[in-house]
Amino acid sequence: MAEFLHVITTDQFTERLSRFPRLSSERVSLDDSWHRNLAEDVVAPEDLPVRARSTVDGYAVRAEDTFGASDAIPALLEVVAAVEMGAMPDFVIRAGQAAQIPTGGFLPEGADAVVMVEYTNPVGGHGVEIMRPLAARTNVLEKGEDVRTGEGVVSVGRTLRPYEIGLLAALGIKDVAVYRRPRVAIISTGDEVVAIERTPQPGQIRDANAHSIAALVRAAGGKAIGFDIVPDSAGKLRAALDDGLAQADIVALSGGSSVGTRDLVLEVVAGLPGVEVLAHGVAIRPGKPTLLADRKGMAIFGLPGHPVSALIVAQVFLIPFLKYLQGDDLKKGPLGRRLKAVLSTSIHSSVGLEEFVRVRLEDAADGGYCAHPVFGKSGMLSTMVRADGIVVVPMRVEGIAKGEIVEVVEI
Amino acid sequence: MAEFLHVITTDQFTERLSRFPRLSSERVSLDDSWHRNLAEDVVAPEDLPVRARSTVDGYAVRAEDTFGASDAIPALLEVVAAVEMGAMPDFVIRAGQAAQIPTGGFLPEGADAVVMVEYTNPVGGHGVEIMRPLAARTNVLEKGEDVRTGEGVVSVGRTLRPYEIGLLAALGIKDVAVYRRPRVAIISTGDEVVAIERTPQPGQIRDANAHSIAALVRAAGGKAIGFDIVPDSAGKLRAALDDGLAQADIVALSGGSSVGTRDLVLEVVAGLPGVEVLAHGVAIRPGKPTLLADRKGMAIFGLPGHPVSALIVAQVFLIPFLKYLQGDDLKKGPLGRRLKAVLSTSIHSSVGLEEFVRVRLEDAADGGYCAHPVFGKSGMLSTMVRADGIVVVPMRVEGIAKGEIVEVVEI
Repeated sequence: MAEFLHVITTDQFTERLSRFPRLSSERVSLDDSWHRNLAEDVVAPEDLPVRARSTVDGYAVRAEDTFGASDAIPALLEVVAAVEMGAMPDFVIRAGQAAQIPTGGFLPEGADAVVMVEYTNPVGGHGVEIMRPLAARTNVLEKGEDVRTGEGVVSVGRTLRPYEIGLLAALGIKDVAVYRRPRVAIISTGDEVVAIERTPQPGQIRDANAHSIAALVRAAGGKAIGFDIVPDSAGKLRAALDDGLAQADIVALSGGSSVGTRDLVLEVVAGLPGVEVLAHGVAIRPGKPTLLADRKGMAIFGLPGHPVSALIVAQVFLIPFLKYLQGDDLKKGPLGRRLKAVLSTSIHSSVGLEEFVRVRLEDAADGGYCAHPVFGKSGMLSTMVRADGIVVVPMRVEGIAKGEIVEVVEI
Repeated sequence: MAEFLHVITTDQFTERLSRFPRLSSERVSLDDSWHRNLAEDVVAPEDLPVRARSTVDGYAVRAEDTFGASDAIPALLEVVAAVEMGAMPDFVIRAGQAAQIPTGGFLPEGADAVVMVEYTNPVGGHGVEIMRPLAARTNVLEKGEDVRTGEGVVSVGRTLRPYEIGLLAALGIKDVAVYRRPRVAIISTGDEVVAIERTPQPGQIRDANAHSIAALVRAAGGKAIGFDIVPDSAGKLRAALDDGLAQADIVALSGGSSVGTRDLVLEVVAGLPGVEVLAHGVAIRPGKPTLLADRKGMAIFGLPGHPVSALIVAQVFLIPFLKYLQGDDLKKGPLGRRLKAVLSTSIHSSVGLEEFVRVRLEDAADGGYCAHPVFGKSGMLSTMVRADGIVVVPMRVEGIAKGEIVEVVEI
């Protein structure tokens, strides 16, 4: 058995992923850009607003005409016009004049402030009393005050939220360059593995990995490409790998759980022309038998066959890698929200392996969280379902005592 | 002006949303079920595993044959067979016997434990020395230990993660009933509003809301249905509403920012047959001019025309409502991750309005966060782009002092 020739640490594994180039970009319409990462800096093509606008309903005035105005001694102005929505005012406000203006209306020339309708009182047919003194620019959004022509609006790498999309729309930007979604070929191997549509014969098991890993890939913005299950045959595995490399950006093999299948995967991957095996074994539990290879700039992941191990390894390495390919910084996963919690039961761990312990979170009396390690053997999928998060026990640590504060990553 | 006849609090608004029924369910394949909410309880149709399996590579044995074994005095057993992956062992392990077994292999009858290969030593052609004593079930996943037939596996309302999908796949469950995605008709109104594909004429502005609200709807699992922009005409607005109600589950109007458009929207919505106006005005800033109506069990939201106000109102009410329709509990938004931060600058707020203040988060020296209120007038879209989160200032509070601890909702 050529097992664990290159067992490396999780940090080394992550570092080796950084050799792969990011994906190219594509232009998508603004409505398809949600949650994608920008592949270019976007600069404002014009001012926003293009001209001063009112932020309230009221009267556009010259601020100096209101100096000293109060409830007792209001300023009396002549109402000369009304600003219409959808039209640029074609009149000028001179000393002693005002114009009705709705929220969002463009300011007429000459006016430099807007008094809210609440502080006014109509007088006769064409007069209005102003009961408050205004500083210039009061209730006005100046030309270019939101965004100025040439200003950087959204930077490369930024994940587009509805807010960025709204601002880009307001600037008339209809499409943007974003990083392409990674296509991931998902190939399950092992003589004992059958598709979930089939009824397993005695000794066979269903292919859970194809579905759980595909869901993770989708959650990370990737496109999962499904392949037929490959039996333990070097020729068939080689053919599937060639197919996967041709159709996708990354191949994620999930090796059968047996040593035989794992050896076969290593042999076939290592035998590909132009391939370099970057890792064969990583010092984590679960998930030690993980393979990483570089085939001319394309990554091949050999995930463990165990469904739980495959999920953990995918969370720790594959998902962050897919995010990295789309422009994110490369990090070690899992990537969820991190929070502090009090550990309810001591965790024992092996020195020399970084351990990923599943925990259930509970609200604690003090407003914080309590983390309960999930019981059950490591290989049980139900332990993942019962878990809200993961506690990482570092390689050099033997365990964590009950009552200690731990960092939990939500999964 | 019939403004704010029914100004209500945010809690009242949320409570009124609870009168609407949840959406119906649909069956989807497991691969389409990621991030959907289950509309049924799922019960295990069989045991997982269906029969005891080994969790390591080694030898299947009778535990009692290893009692007292040690490096110094190993137990010597006869290797009678090897378990093959993909086949059910057709032999029996009797006293004094062992069988080679790979990780994941099904245990032969008679065996009740597996010794790891590391603690064994082959002897002659058919013998193996066992250097460790084993308790029954060591390195064995028992029949039904992961999940037992008839056990509840995933409950109604649960959002399906890759872990649940993996477990369902392992149980051979190919499709599941999930809540339908809400279809949201997005209708922008206002004489001054033009599609972003067009060049605005003087006095016109681009329709940012259609795109930002559509992105929020998508983020909440809904389907946004775009409609042409409706000018300030009762007849055209009525026609668009009828279309929206026919094609969607919810209508989200975004009213022009002017009082005229808002009055028109209220008049047309209130005039629909069988309609009940549930709210016209909500005590929040920004976002006060918000309309909610119930048209025979279908919700009509009248969002403010201001892009920032529309985004805030959608975060506070529309998005939680879309989640609720899909089986989540109804909550007041924004729904993001909540964290504590030290406020860097005092916030002033109006008594009588719940205020949603945009903040930028910064890592603080003590490992916590610092929240900086985002500068700029409330109507500026760039303030949303610069914000990482929202601080909610309650209705009865005049402001929050610099240095206080605040709760920030990430957006």
